[in-house]
Amino acid sequence: MAEKKQQKRAIIDMDIHERVTYDELLPYLDNPWQRYIKDTNWVQEKHLPYPILGAAGLDRADAQVPDGRPAGNDLSFMQQQLLDDVGHEAGILTGAGDPSPSSMNGWYEMAVALATAYNDWQIENWLEKDDRLYGSVHIAAQDPASAVREIERVGSHPKMVQVLLPIDDRPWGDPYYHPIFEAAERHNLVIGMHHQEPPNYYGKFPRYFVEWHSVMPNTHMIQVSSMIFNGVFEKYPNLKLAMIEAGFTYIPAFMKKMDQQYKVLRHEVPWVKRMPSSIVKDHVRVTTQPVDELTRDEFLKFIDLMDSDEIVCFSTDYPHWDYDSPFRALPPLGEELEQKIFAENARKLYPKLPARERKVTQ
Amino acid sequence: MAEKKQQKRAIIDMDIHERVTYDELLPYLDNPWQRYIKDTNWVQEKHLPYPILGAAGLDRADAQVPDGRPAGNDLSFMQQQLLDDVGHEAGILTGAGDPSPSSMNGWYEMAVALATAYNDWQIENWLEKDDRLYGSVHIAAQDPASAVREIERVGSHPKMVQVLLPIDDRPWGDPYYHPIFEAAERHNLVIGMHHQEPPNYYGKFPRYFVEWHSVMPNTHMIQVSSMIFNGVFEKYPNLKLAMIEAGFTYIPAFMKKMDQQYKVLRHEVPWVKRMPSSIVKDHVRVTTQPVDELTRDEFLKFIDLMDSDEIVCFSTDYPHWDYDSPFRALPPLGEELEQKIFAENARKLYPKLPARERKVTQ
Repeated sequence: MAEKKQQKRAIIDMDIHERVTYDELLPYLDNPWQRYIKDTNWVQEKHLPYPILGAAGLDRADAQVPDGRPAGNDLSFMQQQLLDDVGHEAGILTGAGDPSPSSMNGWYEMAVALATAYNDWQIENWLEKDDRLYGSVHIAAQDPASAVREIERVGSHPKMVQVLLPIDDRPWGDPYYHPIFEAAERHNLVIGMHHQEPPNYYGKFPRYFVEWHSVMPNTHMIQVSSMIFNGVFEKYPNLKLAMIEAGFTYIPAFMKKMDQQYKVLRHEVPWVKRMPSSIVKDHVRVTTQPVDELTRDEFLKFIDLMDSDEIVCFSTDYPHWDYDSPFRALPPLGEELEQKIFAENARKLYPKLPARERKVTQ
Repeated sequence: MAEKKQQKRAIIDMDIHERVTYDELLPYLDNPWQRYIKDTNWVQEKHLPYPILGAAGLDRADAQVPDGRPAGNDLSFMQQQLLDDVGHEAGILTGAGDPSPSSMNGWYEMAVALATAYNDWQIENWLEKDDRLYGSVHIAAQDPASAVREIERVGSHPKMVQVLLPIDDRPWGDPYYHPIFEAAERHNLVIGMHHQEPPNYYGKFPRYFVEWHSVMPNTHMIQVSSMIFNGVFEKYPNLKLAMIEAGFTYIPAFMKKMDQQYKVLRHEVPWVKRMPSSIVKDHVRVTTQPVDELTRDEFLKFIDLMDSDEIVCFSTDYPHWDYDSPFRALPPLGEELEQKIFAENARKLYPKLPARERKVTQ
């Protein structure tokens, strides 16, 4: 990493994966949950059916903690390799998907316990140990009442900025989940959605990881359309949605498609009062990573087709295999747009982030 | 319809839905299949869980045959309302999805019989009665050996231009189906994919039709990526794929996404020898309908981002509710691009269409 000190502008990174080990969660769990992990080696069911892709699986090989612990498990190593080296102003922690309480199919009560334990562990070991790190409230969304209680319990922590919903096989716009949005809005928390490991091929998995990953934006579109057409943003007009880790290039066509469909089918959803593209502009943000390789001209065409330069936010996805470096991921886009993408769009999105705009030294 | 004689250029319409009634298929069926329809009123299982949308359900209200038969069931009415009035040079019949033999889950043998009956009915009543109409070979793709026999049987008919695969919940790139592509290539037949009624929401249906329809391109992306990453176009280098009825705006982002994924994951699919965007440019065509409402500038940006003006082809989707008129669907795009989209891209795609380029009278 020879990138140190090249950073010229504020960087707010909307997708950093800290990783817990089950052992670390034990002190935060009561029995019987503790015993299931300690005595029976319970682990969350895994979904991805693909063999390991590279030297470190889904992680960057060089991000493994030097003492052998998995990538993302150590704050000081992350500080050194990511935050200090790149010069982050702020980063949002999004968990490693294991555990992902909202993705658990069995026993909701254990999901609830794990969410609580995770949040306590996250606050104690990360949010209160580095000023730059902000957190995601993990919940067991399949049990909205418990999710609301957890949002009440930790949502007003000054470093908690969003409620995390995994993109799995539940469309979150369903009214069953609306109490979660009501609680999030009340606490000025964004809804952050990050894909877990959904079977995205008519409910099955395709043959190859490259196929699964190529159609990953599909699962994001399902969630955005679910939220919009179920009227979530009419019910909760201050709610914001961050769609994390599907890039942004799918957004322009999707805005056009939803608008065209809404024009001819809006009688079906009379509670939706505005054009979907307008709802996207006001309520939905997406992150760059994994960014498609684009020329400056192509990048700007996609932005123009959104009719807004405030939708796209930057993320690295550290420490995963397809990490995007802020120094290399994007073509030169001009000072104003780069400031928005690298920091200011995220700053507007998350009201708890520092309001100051960092002085550009260039 | 006051559109008559406004037509200034050749129009090749890649999506016209002729409709059969089960009664009409009876003479083309042997027993026991005939008896299942006649004696037990067998109909294909239906999938869409939504209430009827308008006066004529999924059809244009004014397209119902005046004697009460369903829209698309009568050649002379279609000639009058569509072909003569608009001035089609050619149109490709794609069936009405009922029956859709490749979408049937039960008893393959009946699907095979229905495909054969459908093709005979189509040839006799449509293809041989109007010079402008070209046909799709219906098959029972779930039984590739029978599908190959049916392609052998009718694929060399001079008016049969493609093999029809419904977009349902089977990803067609799977090697199990490759004999179909081998037979199609041998007969100079395009593979035409048209969505049937796939549960496109993690294998389920969303709450509303507007959601289902807004994410319809997802199922097309699944099929295109399945065909590309399973190496179909390397195995069958002359094969072409027409993706019908998901519009075209999803294509640029999807090309970029597949390219970016292929760059980092191509070790998984070493049989894929070229960038996916390059495969799309050479092998995949998409139809305009249901076209998103775009300004000329937006339309041209999407075309530019594909780096090819030969991918997009015109379709009306007659007689369905969201029919696109060639006089109103697209913004003005300039003579050269309009000629390509309205006719010449389709003419290149289907080698059996007349080669002459119609004189533009403007």
